[in-house]
Amino acid sequence: MAKKILVIHGPNLNLLGMREPKIYGKVTLEKINAELKKIGKKEGVQVDTVQTNIEGEIVGLIQKAKKTYKAIVINPGGYTHYSVAIRDSIASVKLPTVEVHLSNIYAREEFRQKSVIAPVAAGQISGFGRNSYILGLKAAIDLIN
Amino acid sequence: MAKKILVIHGPNLNLLGMREPKIYGKVTLEKINAELKKIGKKEGVQVDTVQTNIEGEIVGLIQKAKKTYKAIVINPGGYTHYSVAIRDSIASVKLPTVEVHLSNIYAREEFRQKSVIAPVAAGQISGFGRNSYILGLKAAIDLIN
Amino acid sequence: MAKKILVIHGPNLNLLGMREPKIYGKVTLEKINAELKKIGKKEGVQVDTVQTNIEGEIVGLIQKAKKTYKAIVINPGGYTHYSVAIRDSIASVKLPTVEVHLSNIYAREEFRQKSVIAPVAAGQISGFGRNSYILGLKAAIDLIN
Amino acid sequence: MAKKILVIHGPNLNLLGMREPKIYGKVTLEKINAELKKIGKKEGVQVDTVQTNIEGEIVGLIQKAKKTYKAIVINPGGYTHYSVAIRDSIASVKLPTVEVHLSNIYAREEFRQKSVIAPVAAGQISGFGRNSYILGLKAAIDLIN
Amino acid sequence: MAKKILVIHGPNLNLLGMREPKIYGKVTLEKINAELKKIGKKEGVQVDTVQTNIEGEIVGLIQKAKKTYKAIVINPGGYTHYSVAIRDSIASVKLPTVEVHLSNIYAREEFRQKSVIAPVAAGQISGFGRNSYILGLKAAIDLIN
Amino acid sequence: MAKKILVIHGPNLNLLGMREPKIYGKVTLEKINAELKKIGKKEGVQVDTVQTNIEGEIVGLIQKAKKTYKAIVINPGGYTHYSVAIRDSIASVKLPTVEVHLSNIYAREEFRQKSVIAPVAAGQISGFGRNSYILGLKAAIDLIN
Amino acid sequence: MAKKILVIHGPNLNLLGMREPKIYGKVTLEKINAELKKIGKKEGVQVDTVQTNIEGEIVGLIQKAKKTYKAIVINPGGYTHYSVAIRDSIASVKLPTVEVHLSNIYAREEFRQKSVIAPVAAGQISGFGRNSYILGLKAAIDLIN
Amino acid sequence: MAKKILVIHGPNLNLLGMREPKIYGKVTLEKINAELKKIGKKEGVQVDTVQTNIEGEIVGLIQKAKKTYKAIVINPGGYTHYSVAIRDSIASVKLPTVEVHLSNIYAREEFRQKSVIAPVAAGQISGFGRNSYILGLKAAIDLIN
Amino acid sequence: MAKKILVIHGPNLNLLGMREPKIYGKVTLEKINAELKKIGKKEGVQVDTVQTNIEGEIVGLIQKAKKTYKAIVINPGGYTHYSVAIRDSIASVKLPTVEVHLSNIYAREEFRQKSVIAPVAAGQISGFGRNSYILGLKAAIDLIN
Amino acid sequence: MAKKILVIHGPNLNLLGMREPKIYGKVTLEKINAELKKIGKKEGVQVDTVQTNIEGEIVGLIQKAKKTYKAIVINPGGYTHYSVAIRDSIASVKLPTVEVHLSNIYAREEFRQKSVIAPVAAGQISGFGRNSYILGLKAAIDLIN
Amino acid sequence: MAKKILVIHGPNLNLLGMREPKIYGKVTLEKINAELKKIGKKEGVQVDTVQTNIEGEIVGLIQKAKKTYKAIVINPGGYTHYSVAIRDSIASVKLPTVEVHLSNIYAREEFRQKSVIAPVAAGQISGFGRNSYILGLKAAIDLIN
Amino acid sequence: MAKKILVIHGPNLNLLGMREPKIYGKVTLEKINAELKKIGKKEGVQVDTVQTNIEGEIVGLIQKAKKTYKAIVINPGGYTHYSVAIRDSIASVKLPTVEVHLSNIYAREEFRQKSVIAPVAAGQISGFGRNSYILGLKAAIDLIN
Repeated sequence: MAKKILVIHGPNLNLLGMREPKIYGKVTLEKINAELKKIGKKEGVQVDTVQTNIEGEIVGLIQKAKKTYKAIVINPGGYTHYSVAIRDSIASVKLPTVEVHLSNIYAREEFRQKSVIAPVAAGQISGFGRNSYILGLKAAIDLIN
Repeated sequence: MAKKILVIHGPNLNLLGMREPKIYGKVTLEKINAELKKIGKKEGVQVDTVQTNIEGEIVGLIQKAKKTYKAIVINPGGYTHYSVAIRDSIASVKLPTVEVHLSNIYAREEFRQKSVIAPVAAGQISGFGRNSYILGLKAAIDLIN
Repeated sequence: MAKKILVIHGPNLNLLGMREPKIYGKVTLEKINAELKKIGKKEGVQVDTVQTNIEGEIVGLIQKAKKTYKAIVINPGGYTHYSVAIRDSIASVKLPTVEVHLSNIYAREEFRQKSVIAPVAAGQISGFGRNSYILGLKAAIDLIN
Repeated sequence: MAKKILVIHGPNLNLLGMREPKIYGKVTLEKINAELKKIGKKEGVQVDTVQTNIEGEIVGLIQKAKKTYKAIVINPGGYTHYSVAIRDSIASVKLPTVEVHLSNIYAREEFRQKSVIAPVAAGQISGFGRNSYILGLKAAIDLIN
Repeated sequence: MAKKILVIHGPNLNLLGMREPKIYGKVTLEKINAELKKIGKKEGVQVDTVQTNIEGEIVGLIQKAKKTYKAIVINPGGYTHYSVAIRDSIASVKLPTVEVHLSNIYAREEFRQKSVIAPVAAGQISGFGRNSYILGLKAAIDLIN
Repeated sequence: MAKKILVIHGPNLNLLGMREPKIYGKVTLEKINAELKKIGKKEGVQVDTVQTNIEGEIVGLIQKAKKTYKAIVINPGGYTHYSVAIRDSIASVKLPTVEVHLSNIYAREEFRQKSVIAPVAAGQISGFGRNSYILGLKAAIDLIN
Repeated sequence: MAKKILVIHGPNLNLLGMREPKIYGKVTLEKINAELKKIGKKEGVQVDTVQTNIEGEIVGLIQKAKKTYKAIVINPGGYTHYSVAIRDSIASVKLPTVEVHLSNIYAREEFRQKSVIAPVAAGQISGFGRNSYILGLKAAIDLIN
Repeated sequence: MAKKILVIHGPNLNLLGMREPKIYGKVTLEKINAELKKIGKKEGVQVDTVQTNIEGEIVGLIQKAKKTYKAIVINPGGYTHYSVAIRDSIASVKLPTVEVHLSNIYAREEFRQKSVIAPVAAGQISGFGRNSYILGLKAAIDLIN
Repeated sequence: MAKKILVIHGPNLNLLGMREPKIYGKVTLEKINAELKKIGKKEGVQVDTVQTNIEGEIVGLIQKAKKTYKAIVINPGGYTHYSVAIRDSIASVKLPTVEVHLSNIYAREEFRQKSVIAPVAAGQISGFGRNSYILGLKAAIDLIN
Repeated sequence: MAKKILVIHGPNLNLLGMREPKIYGKVTLEKINAELKKIGKKEGVQVDTVQTNIEGEIVGLIQKAKKTYKAIVINPGGYTHYSVAIRDSIASVKLPTVEVHLSNIYAREEFRQKSVIAPVAAGQISGFGRNSYILGLKAAIDLIN
Repeated sequence: MAKKILVIHGPNLNLLGMREPKIYGKVTLEKINAELKKIGKKEGVQVDTVQTNIEGEIVGLIQKAKKTYKAIVINPGGYTHYSVAIRDSIASVKLPTVEVHLSNIYAREEFRQKSVIAPVAAGQISGFGRNSYILGLKAAIDLIN
Repeated sequence: MAKKILVIHGPNLNLLGMREPKIYGKVTLEKINAELKKIGKKEGVQVDTVQTNIEGEIVGLIQKAKKTYKAIVINPGGYTHYSVAIRDSIASVKLPTVEVHLSNIYAREEFRQKSVIAPVAAGQISGFGRNSYILGLKAAIDLIN
């Protein structure tokens, strides 16, 4: 059976394509998810995706991932900058976790340049639009092989 | 059909009237909501109100407001000071948004004097008790006319 | 005899309409003053207005307001961010004072996001252009009734 | 009828025993809850326990505790360091509240050394593993007697 | 001819006796001035007093003092905390200058605990109510003898 | 022979009962010491107590405790916030050490919210008045069993 | 008719030559003004000069300059470091403005190393004594040609 | 029987006259003490003086002063800047306390510009050399009359 | 002719494989370069690589890249955290630039968590060992297609 | 023989005219150098110019200038903000040094608003495009006459 | 008669050999003292050594050293980081003073990286274990020759 | 064959003797080098010395030292305060490294009081003029024996 990777989209990523397209691009989340699954298939990995706006649900998703998944790709959205709860859940489950961002968070407001998630992630990819997800998935696949 | 404005009450505002009355006053949320609806009616605007303690639900309410409402009046409560998730949802939907606070947040603890919401709101009204909501509603009506 | 409210315009507000219209709008101070007086009349309140660029004169105006006025609406302009002298005069006279700003000071430069006046004001309204003054006047009227 | 005390476990505490055992110990949450209930019984107090990962639900639990409980023992987990929403709910209900932490938060990362909850709690106990809960319960019992 | 000392009262000190009496006491400025003149007479020194709310006028008073006065006693009021202009005028005229404060500025708000004047004053006396002025005058007399 | 625990009271704790009773309560140090010894006896542990105002003597007491005692309960009083010397002595002797505070130091002045002792203590208990000592003793007993 | 440039000297610059000559040099303001006018004449530009200690008067001078002058050369003296009011007036009139300082403000006290005026000036010249004014005038002439 | 005032000299003040005379002057501590006693006698007050280098002894002196003295004049020397222990003892005994400094601490190194003692003192006098003590004694006499 | 991408290795990267292998891995720079060239070939892109320890040479390499290369992949090594010179050269040439790091710089010392390069890069990839380079090359290829 | 002045252009200034022309203008370095030499000739001064991207070479150029040149005009480019090495070389050779910047560094990013060079320069000129160099050269000539 | 040097060991150094040997080494203080005396003898200098945990006693030792000793070698232990009292005593006696540390204080906790003693010491040696003392003694001997 | 130690002199140290002799002394680098070699010979160690102004060359020297040398003595000059590149090279080669400074960097400007090199050095010696080098060499010899 194929190894499984969970892709978690945080708050407001369901608006992708409609939301500030200059910053986040015009592709919808559905297309990104489809693309990720296709790449996964090619690499022999099953990619599941999920989106939620609720911090505590992301915590729960990460906790449950432990049993089923080999790695996590996560775009924590606005929670990136303060959610110790999400950070703690990643540190707890000890799955290799790749943090991704569509925009280059280091070229934006001061408060976006600090990720409380990054120190417990395996690594971080930011600034390549939807390609951040694709590179992130490849990094995750590499981490579990 | 009347234009619609959504009033969002954040965490702990359901306790209004009971909660630290010296700071927040003795009026209940129900009375404030009734008063806002009455003013709306007089101004030819339909006012809907909602309260939730959950950050991610506020994010969801703002996202869905896009289709139905012309403006938002929001008291983000304790989330005012850290919720980048709520900030991002306001920036995403691009509805004119008025941030209101019952108490004068600038006369309170240091940490309450920073709003992460304000930079993406049209404007902010703070310190006038329930009148903050009424003035906020008037500001919102003015913004959509 | 009608209750009286004093509206104080701080430095550079005499330039309104000419000054950076993208930030401050195109209405002149004269028009705003006229509108405030008209609203005052409707509400049974006499509105007097005054503008000065000199910090110490604002201090003097606030001190003298004690005898004649029931409330103050003030846009302290650039002095907002450092004038402890104005702050002290407001705290001294103990008249209910409403701080207003045309632009959303929380969406501008870092140094504009701190008001030394706000902690001694009854409340603050910022970001609604000339409407900030109108809402501020309404708030002041409400405070003295 | 016995007085009641509510013990609230915040995010990731459901993982206890599995999660970073070097920091948090090997006991499960179930065992801790059982022990707390037993101690309560001996002291003539009914102890109820609850765990949730969702910040807003903790807010709700605290609000509802007002009617039924005499005191709260809370381990806010990752929310300790930023949840003004939880802080406000504790300040609102005015129940004596004891903040507990399994690990010594002052011997860990800089950001863990600041609790936004502590200023509105009766007191704080940190660093004694599961014993933090037991001491916290005793403190709470003492506060309501 | 008697040596002369200039006592400068900064903004809002004309309100003394009326202004926040819990912090500043109930004596009026007139009484303090009379007392200072009387003490001066006893010590063989002529004491002149002046009050103004305008920062630039304080600058001018200090500049002109150079010719006529041997020392300055100054309560810079709210300007204490930011007026580099007043600081520079004191540094320029090089008259021995005693900074006085009615209230203990170190027991008040954070921003009041920094005087930009103090580094160029001979010394500072704060917290003894009207006695701060009397002690300040004595210090000034001592400095010119 | 019974195991021994040393309770160290730092500066000003000899004033207990007289000193700012609103903050520190009305019980005297003698009563607290008696109570601690009684509890110790019940638990089969000998409790010795000592108070000194001198930082270096606290350092010496901790150093000597190594030979005789199994654990330390310490209220470092004002030294909590800066005494690296006391911190170093605790780190040197490696006895399990419980830091206690009568008042909730996190609900007081900013400078009291930082303990330089806490990172080398086993844990910290603050805010429960004399009960802080009792809980601290219980924690210490638990640590040595 | 010759183009006109306004040179504004801020607080304490009237003392030039007398004031701390080690820092500010021995030339008087009159001599500097004469020299500037002479250079102006040579370049076909009329140079007017003005000095005031009062912040609000500087604001007024800048506002009125709009009609008559093509550029401003300003030494804001002590106001350099905090006068948002002067900054706002420069930003409002949009005349090319050259900020000059006699002393090298970056080789002095920390607080003098921050100019709130500089971000809205065309450029800044500091440290060349009276030559700062001459270079500043040349820069201004260049800006209007 | 005459009221008594205690003058406490902190660390290194025994070196007065020898120690960095440019900063602290050439008078010895003995002379200052004699002068203070003489002034006390004239004012009908008994002045006792004491010097110690040991922080904890200063704490003890303040504690014991409670019974015998009506006021304290203290120069905490180097302890001014960090001794929360001394601060707490002053706050505990609630005797009117005058903080004095020979040098102007606000014209020296950054770290000397913060006194942890000042917020609990009645007032502070700094910069007048031995005259700081004399003025401080007068302030103390005034406080107890 | 194939498009060309320049890979720049900053200071100390020539030590790869020997240098702190726990942090940076055991692969040598030669192997990484060979792998990158191979991938480039597969993607129809010519990959050139260069290493230097000298900041100014990196500046020069970036400047010259303008003519020959379509994109840059850069690991600025220790210069990441302060080299405004390198940052300026990237901003000047306007080639799409991908910043890569072998280790997760956000899980290391505080000073490594700030990149002055990132704000002018297209994006950043950090934490995946040699895979950071491979993902970075793919990102660069994607940017030029 | 004519006195000689050395003009040093730091990193990236060789790109002038091509590099971000909105910020730095369209003139090339060659033209600026030619213009400076021409002005020098007119003033009886020989102007030599040099550009390098390497920090240590700038240090060497300044060291060697001691023997041949009477003054230095330097645009340190990106090194302005951190090169203590360049600062130390300027302080060592003690040649009068004028720091120039094409753009107004105080109207740009926060990190560009701090020059570590300025405290050891005679003065600084910033914001006038190529005219900054011309004014800087004039200032240097004035300093050596 | 031989010149004399005083070696002062601050708090906790009496524990040497027992205390955290990984950080401080396994040699006892007695052995270090013996070695220092032997080296002194060889160099024709009498070395006296003393250890105390009490800050004020260190102050007294330094004060008394003035008469008998030519130089001081001091390891201020934990007092290094806050004892202005010890700093002032060193500045007062003006004996050449060498500050030594066994461990490299710059490779440890943030708070250990700041010495308030260093600015008044002749120099500082840190990180060479007992060799720090030997090098420090040699430096002191060199300073008095 | 004798063990070898490399002494690296950073930027501006070639100016020794000429450069600010009040701070750095009058001895030339040649004399210091000769003295170090002589001491080395006496101790049976070959001492090689090198000076460069270029940061990246220091990086290269350290890298190459790995093969030939047993220890490094380095005075990083101005690079001390920001060169992460040099720090990384020291950490990479893992040779025992002694950091030396002629002047007491802790008695100078704020920015000189932070060394980014120190945390990876074995230890640091500062403030003893040329003697810093000699002591540093002795420390290095001790480290390799």
